[in-house]
Amino acid sequence: MTYDHNNAFARILRGEAACIKLVETEAALAFMDLMPQSDGHVLVIPKEPAMDIFELSDTAAEACMRIDCHVALAVRAALRPDGVVIAQLNGRAAGQTVGHVHFHVIPRWAGQRLRPHARVLAEQATLESFAERIRAHLDDPTYE
Amino acid sequence: MTYDHNNAFARILRGEAACIKLVETEAALAFMDLMPQSDGHVLVIPKEPAMDIFELSDTAAEACMRIDCHVALAVRAALRPDGVVIAQLNGRAAGQTVGHVHFHVIPRWAGQRLRPHARVLAEQATLESFAERIRAHLDDPTYE
Repeated sequence: MTYDHNNAFARILRGEAACIKLVETEAALAFMDLMPQSDGHVLVIPKEPAMDIFELSDTAAEACMRIDCHVALAVRAALRPDGVVIAQLNGRAAGQTVGHVHFHVIPRWAGQRLRPHARVLAEQATLESFAERIRAHLDDPTYE
Repeated sequence: MTYDHNNAFARILRGEAACIKLVETEAALAFMDLMPQSDGHVLVIPKEPAMDIFELSDTAAEACMRIDCHVALAVRAALRPDGVVIAQLNGRAAGQTVGHVHFHVIPRWAGQRLRPHARVLAEQATLESFAERIRAHLDDPTYE
């Protein structure tokens, strides 16, 4: 398989598809997952066109990780979950559904099961409202 | 909760408990999970004493991510799984079982379910044999 420049995240990066953006740096972008597995589910993607972690440069992986950490902190401050999962899936057998590297930042609440991955579209207004709460805690969007 | 300096991974870092080591840098350590969810399940931990990602420095998080990527490549080359999951769990509600930040690198094979997390001890010889195969592909253990 080779990288498909028309995958959903490549289109977001080119501005051809919309996203509910949380933070953007030179190397990466964080936005709300449209089919969240829990409330406040965020995706972090590198700008580098890489299908999976095997193709990604160390520099881009580190840039994503830095945003993962900052987003995780902001999600925790905003939504007060009992835990947070950071997950990065490579290959269909691992649950990857879009052919551009992405990191999931998924809040967890005790006793609450995750919704299925990439199945049900959330209401736009609901996502916007979570995004607003998370953004309030991402106080320095220019960290590099 | 505060960081417990006697957690299992702190003891490994101090050399008080054994581990099947794959690679070590100034900032991080990768070793075989003793209770693997699939064959070749590796853990990557920072040397920094942080309970979860919320306490971890960006620098240490990046150092772990760099090793995650290299280990994922080596695991893929050694074991030829259909996919690889990188997962980092924070809080019991997220499935965290040891109070020191760790990243799981978990090979996935199509149609094969994961074994339960942190339940069944694998045979030492089996783990050693997977470690040997993975090490053969971690050709530069000093990348920094």
